[in-house]
Amino acid sequence: MQAPRIASFQPPRRTLMGPGPSDVPQRILDAMARPTIGHLDPAFSDMMEQTKSLLRYAFQTENKLTFPVSGPGSVGMETCFVNLVEPGDQVIVCINGVFGGRMLENVKRSGGVPVVVEDAWGRAVDAAKVAAAFAANPDAKLLTFVHAETSTGAQSDAAAISAIARGHGALSIMDCVTSLGGTPVLIDAWGIDAAYSGSQKCLSCTPGLSPVTFSERAIAKVKARATPVQSWFMDLNLVLGYWSGEGKRTYHHTAPINPLYGLHEALVMLAEEGIENAWARHRAEHEALKAGLEKLGLAFIVPEAERLPQLNSVTIPAGVDDAAARARLLNEFNLEIGAGLGALAGKIWRIGLMGASARRENVEYCLKALAEVIGK
Amino acid sequence: MQAPRIASFQPPRRTLMGPGPSDVPQRILDAMARPTIGHLDPAFSDMMEQTKSLLRYAFQTENKLTFPVSGPGSVGMETCFVNLVEPGDQVIVCINGVFGGRMLENVKRSGGVPVVVEDAWGRAVDAAKVAAAFAANPDAKLLTFVHAETSTGAQSDAAAISAIARGHGALSIMDCVTSLGGTPVLIDAWGIDAAYSGSQKCLSCTPGLSPVTFSERAIAKVKARATPVQSWFMDLNLVLGYWSGEGKRTYHHTAPINPLYGLHEALVMLAEEGIENAWARHRAEHEALKAGLEKLGLAFIVPEAERLPQLNSVTIPAGVDDAAARARLLNEFNLEIGAGLGALAGKIWRIGLMGASARRENVEYCLKALAEVIGK
Repeated sequence: MQAPRIASFQPPRRTLMGPGPSDVPQRILDAMARPTIGHLDPAFSDMMEQTKSLLRYAFQTENKLTFPVSGPGSVGMETCFVNLVEPGDQVIVCINGVFGGRMLENVKRSGGVPVVVEDAWGRAVDAAKVAAAFAANPDAKLLTFVHAETSTGAQSDAAAISAIARGHGALSIMDCVTSLGGTPVLIDAWGIDAAYSGSQKCLSCTPGLSPVTFSERAIAKVKARATPVQSWFMDLNLVLGYWSGEGKRTYHHTAPINPLYGLHEALVMLAEEGIENAWARHRAEHEALKAGLEKLGLAFIVPEAERLPQLNSVTIPAGVDDAAARARLLNEFNLEIGAGLGALAGKIWRIGLMGASARRENVEYCLKALAEVIGK
Repeated sequence: MQAPRIASFQPPRRTLMGPGPSDVPQRILDAMARPTIGHLDPAFSDMMEQTKSLLRYAFQTENKLTFPVSGPGSVGMETCFVNLVEPGDQVIVCINGVFGGRMLENVKRSGGVPVVVEDAWGRAVDAAKVAAAFAANPDAKLLTFVHAETSTGAQSDAAAISAIARGHGALSIMDCVTSLGGTPVLIDAWGIDAAYSGSQKCLSCTPGLSPVTFSERAIAKVKARATPVQSWFMDLNLVLGYWSGEGKRTYHHTAPINPLYGLHEALVMLAEEGIENAWARHRAEHEALKAGLEKLGLAFIVPEAERLPQLNSVTIPAGVDDAAARARLLNEFNLEIGAGLGALAGKIWRIGLMGASARRENVEYCLKALAEVIGK
């Protein structure tokens, strides 16, 4: 067989203002390029323990079982569902966008019996509906909801929603892929039992890792399962042997060493900045972007009180061709913004201000480019 | 919550001669540190297509569905099983080491009915036993085996084993995590229907990606499933929309962009060297290592005809403390070799000569260090 003649890949230099990945600081890229060591090397174990501490800070939790899953956010999501849903469990699933729908898929494939609570795309989850669903289904074992809907930019009141589940003795699973590091995610204060995020959003690392955290109640449920977890790779009973750090570290799979260097560095940077400062920065840049977008006549799809600062969804102006406009932004400005997903495809743009992308230069550059492309 | 005060991680510089990860060339690390772009960027799509071509070359196949799974080798393994095993399917599982045992776990968790064919750890799979298993179970739908057992260093006759499955109209799943790029892996010539590998072995990339390939017969089986694939993330029906490249690329999950730059570079380097030359290099360095190990009185556990050149398992000499010796190699020589796994823990060492680690300097350095540590 002839060897293909293909040159090294030289990616273009983009400004990333979509729904993730966000701009990755050179410091994080440099960390990823350090020498590879083994996944059972004592030096690597030390780094794993540091990463767990740093993630606890990001999640604002004391949960011992807090670590990065060796896969993208979708694997973190599936890890939560295959471990916490047992066949036959009734699960209340809140859907207000694409990722709530993906949760529903996970519930079904894990053998759960879903009870769907629907809200309009672009709106927060309505806590009153969640309360009504629990009243009608008092045996529900789990509640699942998306804190920050990446498909719309809506933020839900996690504390209120989670309290309802607690009141009914149910566990909660929360998607905080787009919120972690960008707006408050308070796992312990909110009483969340399982949460998953992604490395490539407000943590500004490269994609491919999914930070997760589990409460003691969640771990007890996993340990008490009557049926084995359907996934070997995601079975927390096995993963724990590698990530728990209690006594001897047992080989489970080969961890993605260099990407984990990158995540460690991203979390060190978050700790250096201070998470409250990171939240404030995302808020401030959102305000600046919002003012500019409104000047351009671009309307937000999410009501102000329910808006995520780090993900700004606006209606595509009448007469503007979605694909052509985004292609111009990419080709002429090296600027990536996000398209609409699912039912919102072709109707909205999603402008991300996540992690290192949440800075004034990006805001101004994006507004300038948008003005040219929509002809304002 | 107080921000943890943790410094950037500076890994030690090791010589990696365990069962993977292997030494990662600076060229690959540099590729990983290039600017992150979006997972739907047209420039990234071009790179994905190149990666698929390069992987076809590595696997020596024309299979259209050849791509890197966004997770470690264990996820590539599970992807094969959850897609190809349907509940109730009889599956013949060959076990001659740890990774055959992991296949058995995957068969069970996918709802398959396993028929186990066992061979001693350190020996190849016995084709006669496979033929007997098919004769006794003519309705078996699948055969699964490990081409290169990473836990022992034994290599099996994939062509002969796979031909038996074909003869009975069964599909074959092959683990080639440790063989791809190091010894011939001839997917089409051998008639293998599904195979998975890892990025961190003879491809010498960082860990975290799992190249897979599927024949048209395998795809037909996945498409004809009566039951949904239990995993959302690994469901090939969905993954295909992102990796197939037929028409519009559909978002499925956010691909690990920068690690994929690294894998692309590793595969470009393999194509530049020529895969036959890479095989010959692994063979030549194995011969050099073998001569040295024998001089030191270290005995191979695998009979010569069944030995993998890139993974050399030797019995730990009497009187030598396993953990202490490996700790000395790591601390005094910055040299990692592999411990025994499972039943072989404490009894053997596994010395890897994979990818960039398969070079004369490494062989000589390892022999010198071993001689000191075992007191020869």
